[in-house]
Amino acid sequence: MKFASLKDGSRDGRLLIVSRDLSRAVEAETAATLQAALDDWAQSLPGLQGEAEALEAGERADGFAFDPTLCHSPLPRAYQWADGSAYVNHVALVRQARGAEMPESFWTDPLMYQGGSDSFLGPCDPIPFVDPAWGLDLEAEVAVVVDDVPPGASLDQAAAAIRLIMLVNDVSLRGLIPGELAKGFGFFQAKPSSAFSPVAVTPEELGEAWDGAKLSLPLLVQMNGQPFGKAEAGEDMTFDFPQLIAHAARSRPLAAGTIIGSGTVSNRDASGGPGKPIADGGRGYSCIAEVRMVETILNGEAKTGFLKEGDSVSIEMLDAEGKSIFGAIEQRVAKPR
Amino acid sequence: MKFASLKDGSRDGRLLIVSRDLSRAVEAETAATLQAALDDWAQSLPGLQGEAEALEAGERADGFAFDPTLCHSPLPRAYQWADGSAYVNHVALVRQARGAEMPESFWTDPLMYQGGSDSFLGPCDPIPFVDPAWGLDLEAEVAVVVDDVPPGASLDQAAAAIRLIMLVNDVSLRGLIPGELAKGFGFFQAKPSSAFSPVAVTPEELGEAWDGAKLSLPLLVQMNGQPFGKAEAGEDMTFDFPQLIAHAARSRPLAAGTIIGSGTVSNRDASGGPGKPIADGGRGYSCIAEVRMVETILNGEAKTGFLKEGDSVSIEMLDAEGKSIFGAIEQRVAKPR
Repeated sequence: MKFASLKDGSRDGRLLIVSRDLSRAVEAETAATLQAALDDWAQSLPGLQGEAEALEAGERADGFAFDPTLCHSPLPRAYQWADGSAYVNHVALVRQARGAEMPESFWTDPLMYQGGSDSFLGPCDPIPFVDPAWGLDLEAEVAVVVDDVPPGASLDQAAAAIRLIMLVNDVSLRGLIPGELAKGFGFFQAKPSSAFSPVAVTPEELGEAWDGAKLSLPLLVQMNGQPFGKAEAGEDMTFDFPQLIAHAARSRPLAAGTIIGSGTVSNRDASGGPGKPIADGGRGYSCIAEVRMVETILNGEAKTGFLKEGDSVSIEMLDAEGKSIFGAIEQRVAKPR
Repeated sequence: MKFASLKDGSRDGRLLIVSRDLSRAVEAETAATLQAALDDWAQSLPGLQGEAEALEAGERADGFAFDPTLCHSPLPRAYQWADGSAYVNHVALVRQARGAEMPESFWTDPLMYQGGSDSFLGPCDPIPFVDPAWGLDLEAEVAVVVDDVPPGASLDQAAAAIRLIMLVNDVSLRGLIPGELAKGFGFFQAKPSSAFSPVAVTPEELGEAWDGAKLSLPLLVQMNGQPFGKAEAGEDMTFDFPQLIAHAARSRPLAAGTIIGSGTVSNRDASGGPGKPIADGGRGYSCIAEVRMVETILNGEAKTGFLKEGDSVSIEMLDAEGKSIFGAIEQRVAKPR
């Protein structure tokens, strides 16, 4: 099943069931919002499945063409957004670029920050551009939405709680990060509202690409219409989703609708060194900070600039047949209205 | 007006309007849940006010005795919980106890962390005790609930957005904090579910104790039935609530229902040194970590232990006439069921 949330003037939007090929949608009768469906998933599931089957079979006369530009993120606001940093290669590059040691424990103990979840951007909403000194960046990631997870959950319990998968643009303000992290309380102002893919999908929609713990497909990132990244989300993921979920739930429960992110998807180069740009035969990058780090390591200084007004960003994932799974995050950088 | 949320089997509880003296309550007709009321405050306000007046006048036949033990926190789950550290004295003591310098900027730039908001404890729910090494502690604080706040809000806009005030027990796991902060991403496992006072109140209920920015009353903390703290919440608050709200909203909007906390309330001693215990004529403490820091500074080692199974904690605030404003957070430490 695939779900979206239509902008209807309400804070949570209207739950849509979207056809597998993303061409058609219908307002769900089973639940009004995605959070409502997640609040009582076992109860909602049969109804949602029946509706999705009817939509696929062309039996829903109230179906309409699906338009991601009219949608919120699948959860327009959520009760929790916790973002891991599972691709430790990304963290190692950050440290290498500034000549700092990375603690060995980073390979065994997940990094995770508590993100703001009260107001996400829609998948096609502009990214607000406020101050060039803030160093506006994208971070392309995969995320899961979980059901209730008990405190101290095992990896099996964590894996069993995964209900939906989606993509994220974890918008980041690089210029605000060093000062904020130096204060010791983690990110706050440096992480403004994130955007999620138009559609969140249930695991079975991913076929063999989803093994219950990782999603093994390239994460396609474009910048101003040019290929920027195609990192393999299933490779170099030091901590898989059940590990991230169990980490988050170590000392407290996670409530249904909690979103857990992978952190910026990042691959090592085949040589073991930092990844090359796509133009040089590499897999490119899922954020600007990483290409800047690689430039710094290779040439002593960063060349690529952060996002500026008018830039566009696209994040998408295609299945083995080249069809979009989640729809595309398609955002333009613009002054706030 | 005073609001509570009755446990009714649902995730958000049932909105109650509570009488000024906390003796009576009635299920609100205007809105089913507190979040629903906050989602459309301007629309809800006249109805809620009418209902509260009717309750005070004894005109609601459906009124019943108010019992905090049957209640969730006023917002059983929220879209955002952001906790400041406005009593910089508390931070300075932490640093002093471990011989570390505190950056001067801490007096001008608020510390704030993004907390988990998906599952709060009820005001009379047990505090789960899992592992003695986790160093279970309370943190008694004041918090406000805001309406929508635009990004980059001014102090005036921030002040105007304050809708409700309540008390918090920001449960903390001291044993997990050093390792977690050393990783640089802030608190996560070290901050399990917080609990809030049974009742959230509108600003006008506080009379002269509320000046629109600070709440000037002692925050009464008891441990196992003995007085432990009576810090003046209006003193030594380096950053007031509008400053904390504006800090949180610097790079993104805050959505209605966002909770902003003051951080542990903490006063300097009249001599300028660390505060004395209540038994020694001081104002005591709002968390165990602080008495341990003072013990360390004065005697070279901490004597007071962290919370253990069976301990009880109470947090309350009385008005000038000695009447409870928010009801009491009354929690016992217990093994999770």
